[in-house]
Amino acid sequence: MPKYGFIGLGIMGSPMAANLIKAGFDVTVWNRTPGKCAPLVALGARQVESPRQVAESCDITFAMLADPAAAHAASFGPEGVLEGISDGRGYIDMSTVDDATSCAIAAAIVKAGGRFLEAPVFGTKKPAEDGTLIILTAGDQSLYDEAAAALDKLGKLRLYLGAVGQGARMKLVLNMIMGGMMTAFCEGMALGQKGGLDCSQILAVLDAGPLANPMFKGKGPMLMAGNFPTSFPLKHMQKDLRLAVALGDKLGQPLHSAAMANETFKRACAAGHADEDFSAVYRVIG
Amino acid sequence: MPKYGFIGLGIMGSPMAANLIKAGFDVTVWNRTPGKCAPLVALGARQVESPRQVAESCDITFAMLADPAAAHAASFGPEGVLEGISDGRGYIDMSTVDDATSCAIAAAIVKAGGRFLEAPVFGTKKPAEDGTLIILTAGDQSLYDEAAAALDKLGKLRLYLGAVGQGARMKLVLNMIMGGMMTAFCEGMALGQKGGLDCSQILAVLDAGPLANPMFKGKGPMLMAGNFPTSFPLKHMQKDLRLAVALGDKLGQPLHSAAMANETFKRACAAGHADEDFSAVYRVIG
Amino acid sequence: MPKYGFIGLGIMGSPMAANLIKAGFDVTVWNRTPGKCAPLVALGARQVESPRQVAESCDITFAMLADPAAAHAASFGPEGVLEGISDGRGYIDMSTVDDATSCAIAAAIVKAGGRFLEAPVFGTKKPAEDGTLIILTAGDQSLYDEAAAALDKLGKLRLYLGAVGQGARMKLVLNMIMGGMMTAFCEGMALGQKGGLDCSQILAVLDAGPLANPMFKGKGPMLMAGNFPTSFPLKHMQKDLRLAVALGDKLGQPLHSAAMANETFKRACAAGHADEDFSAVYRVIG
Amino acid sequence: MPKYGFIGLGIMGSPMAANLIKAGFDVTVWNRTPGKCAPLVALGARQVESPRQVAESCDITFAMLADPAAAHAASFGPEGVLEGISDGRGYIDMSTVDDATSCAIAAAIVKAGGRFLEAPVFGTKKPAEDGTLIILTAGDQSLYDEAAAALDKLGKLRLYLGAVGQGARMKLVLNMIMGGMMTAFCEGMALGQKGGLDCSQILAVLDAGPLANPMFKGKGPMLMAGNFPTSFPLKHMQKDLRLAVALGDKLGQPLHSAAMANETFKRACAAGHADEDFSAVYRVIG
Repeated sequence: MPKYGFIGLGIMGSPMAANLIKAGFDVTVWNRTPGKCAPLVALGARQVESPRQVAESCDITFAMLADPAAAHAASFGPEGVLEGISDGRGYIDMSTVDDATSCAIAAAIVKAGGRFLEAPVFGTKKPAEDGTLIILTAGDQSLYDEAAAALDKLGKLRLYLGAVGQGARMKLVLNMIMGGMMTAFCEGMALGQKGGLDCSQILAVLDAGPLANPMFKGKGPMLMAGNFPTSFPLKHMQKDLRLAVALGDKLGQPLHSAAMANETFKRACAAGHADEDFSAVYRVIG
Repeated sequence: MPKYGFIGLGIMGSPMAANLIKAGFDVTVWNRTPGKCAPLVALGARQVESPRQVAESCDITFAMLADPAAAHAASFGPEGVLEGISDGRGYIDMSTVDDATSCAIAAAIVKAGGRFLEAPVFGTKKPAEDGTLIILTAGDQSLYDEAAAALDKLGKLRLYLGAVGQGARMKLVLNMIMGGMMTAFCEGMALGQKGGLDCSQILAVLDAGPLANPMFKGKGPMLMAGNFPTSFPLKHMQKDLRLAVALGDKLGQPLHSAAMANETFKRACAAGHADEDFSAVYRVIG
Repeated sequence: MPKYGFIGLGIMGSPMAANLIKAGFDVTVWNRTPGKCAPLVALGARQVESPRQVAESCDITFAMLADPAAAHAASFGPEGVLEGISDGRGYIDMSTVDDATSCAIAAAIVKAGGRFLEAPVFGTKKPAEDGTLIILTAGDQSLYDEAAAALDKLGKLRLYLGAVGQGARMKLVLNMIMGGMMTAFCEGMALGQKGGLDCSQILAVLDAGPLANPMFKGKGPMLMAGNFPTSFPLKHMQKDLRLAVALGDKLGQPLHSAAMANETFKRACAAGHADEDFSAVYRVIG
Repeated sequence: MPKYGFIGLGIMGSPMAANLIKAGFDVTVWNRTPGKCAPLVALGARQVESPRQVAESCDITFAMLADPAAAHAASFGPEGVLEGISDGRGYIDMSTVDDATSCAIAAAIVKAGGRFLEAPVFGTKKPAEDGTLIILTAGDQSLYDEAAAALDKLGKLRLYLGAVGQGARMKLVLNMIMGGMMTAFCEGMALGQKGGLDCSQILAVLDAGPLANPMFKGKGPMLMAGNFPTSFPLKHMQKDLRLAVALGDKLGQPLHSAAMANETFKRACAAGHADEDFSAVYRVIG
């Protein structure tokens, strides 16, 4: 049985590592704040003292870090993954990072003799706990194949998308569609309300027909309540729309509607809603 | 038990009337082409010779006619509904008609002593057969209440939305959201494809996450095949977007994204795709 | 020498009629408030008591009325133009009216035996006084030719555009371009200001180069001062954008940018700036 | 009298240097292809063999180079400006370069003991010959003041805009307005034409009223002829719109109309018109 490592035990990483352990895998963990390792050790994990130690003692190391800076540090920093990886060992970075960070880590891992897979996920805390994430991988296909059994404990759907960068690109496409759907939804709710319709009836009709989707169902009551507790920050959605439009620029793909959604989310940022949930774009539409 | 009438036995009307008969209701039918009545008579319906005869012999008469002209003729024409309705009898027009036609029929029915309910539906042939339409009613609420048992055999969801006109307005709101979602979907598929992603993987990811909806699932393969057999004609979607934007104009509701979608559907019309399915908007985006 | 009539002596009509008299033409005037005729009589005009009397005593009658209702009343009302026109006499309506009003008047004049020319103008009080209006005519071309000498005293440019309705259509095209230019101008000023540029320097550069135009020169200082005294009401610009987009709808011409400008002006209306100058759209952009 | 240098004698630089010489200034020139110096030497210029020699022998050196790479090479390359500049000598770069290049050159010049002014121009060959360029300067204000007499021979308007980078920013704002105006113009012409108006009449009316500007006058006949000889390449306009929208992103300024124009120019690029004049955007609108 291969030995697995897990670096980064935050809101997402902890339940993900736990799912691997509960499935009977051999798991070695590390976290910057060591205390977070205890519950996993209690479940059967081995704890070590650095990313380097994880990488050099495991066949395949997973990482789920908070941001690009943390992902970069875990690889390139002192006692980092790069000091431990070699001999074809695998590194699967599931953090959401930008292209440049992802490519830099990938290149360094490969140069050090390891194999790299980018694997950003779709889904938040609950799916991480339930093992129902959607995992978008790209990079070394042999590593993808070898990690299949473990990935299946973390998510309900895993896809191999090609060269490093295609995982991030898929996330952009999805978030761009999400931003456009949210804008259309908010405009519809606003128009209906101004037109004397009852928003709960609009939601009921939407939910019964061909447009029914979990997002409308989840966010609809938030629009009605005018209360937008942050699940996915509005400023991140705006950033992704901006990047998607820029990608369209690079690829020669006009995106009239996404560009429009981008400007509307930008207006919501300018109006002070950057840190609210992205559904708060309703505030500048309604 | 109340006596029900049913006028208009086309693709939609025939299975709807059949559902009422199979449910044990007393149903009288009429159709312009009388031959279409035979299968319903075989199921137990009574056949008469004019809309007038339906209206004067039934407590509640349903109509499902092909277009505003047919709806207008059935009411106002010789031997029409208006000649037979009186004494508080009910007329429920489920045809999709414009505001002006709906209001003209409503006013005439009320003036003649009858009660009127507009009841456009969301859903096509299959839901009509399965009795799973979504029914958007507006007008006389007592008639809505009395017709509840029958409406429940025709649809899986029925809503009472207020004064005549609100049913049509709800349909506009829904179609506007649908047009915006389709535009966002097509832009996402086009961007992904230009970016080297596999469209079937985009569809798989969409279908596994918070944006999953029957429309993407149904239309996605059509986008991939570049083949758009008409379910809802593109020109009708463009008309509804135009009317929704005009409604926003009237109500003081800016609709940047819907306006953009309207122009894009308009471009698809100008490019010769008016009679294809509305998902053929992909042809001018991709 | 032909005899000219002039109906409607408001802010525009008075100086226009005066220009005809000063040019030595024989002019007969009427105004609903008769007192407004005195200064023109002092210049040499003949005053009569109704539109009918003007029309039946003159070869060519001009009208410059406040709105469609006034234009309609002057033609169709008691003692109106239609009671006096016949024998090929000409009626040139320079009021800004909607298509329907214009066509109704045109048809009635022709039926009564007269000739009709629609002639909306581009320009306000000052050009009316200076005889430098831009006159957009459509309708009876023989009347256009016969009135040439008089039109040349009213405006610096006159165009014959074809059938009745083309004058109004040309105004829509111009106002649509004007609305788009104003939106681009406001966005540029807003971006420059946020970027630390001095707006007066932006105006100076604009005025020195290929984009220099009287509108930027006139409205620029208003944008800087944040003060928008009404010359052309914002709500009228929004109406014209709406009509232009609707015309594009009818003619199969997508208008992404005009549609966007329309929504932005709509937002300015919704924010309470409907009665300010149309340049006040800057308030919702800047 | 100060000694002036001029580096880069292309289509723009040659007539600019000639204007300085004809005005009686002491001018030293260099060009990569030395043959281009001959006509200027005939007018009285001194010719040297490298940018270094220009910089070290002149008080103020102007540069007008073809692109960022050429501008970079002239400063940083062997025998470049940086090897000759010191003691407060001035370097005025009038090339159109990106922010990064401009800031890199500025920093290096200052570090070497020189003074730097960025000075992109608005205007092409003809204004360069006529000395009627618009000069947008930013950087060292003392250098701006000292160079005033010379700048006045090159342009009809010169502005000092602040820190290095503001010159480029002003150009973005102007080009963004230009792109929006062009889009509005093309939509208006297209709508008019579809509506049966004569485009030459639209141009005549535009040219007589408040929207009259040299760009419409110059490009209008090109739109009518459907022929777009390149003066400012469409792809450059699209790039500037992209950068302007990105600047809006950074500064929190929503730009719905500029974003829309960007997508439309992007569509024109995708349709194969990237190298035509930017007015060829008409091809995808009309």
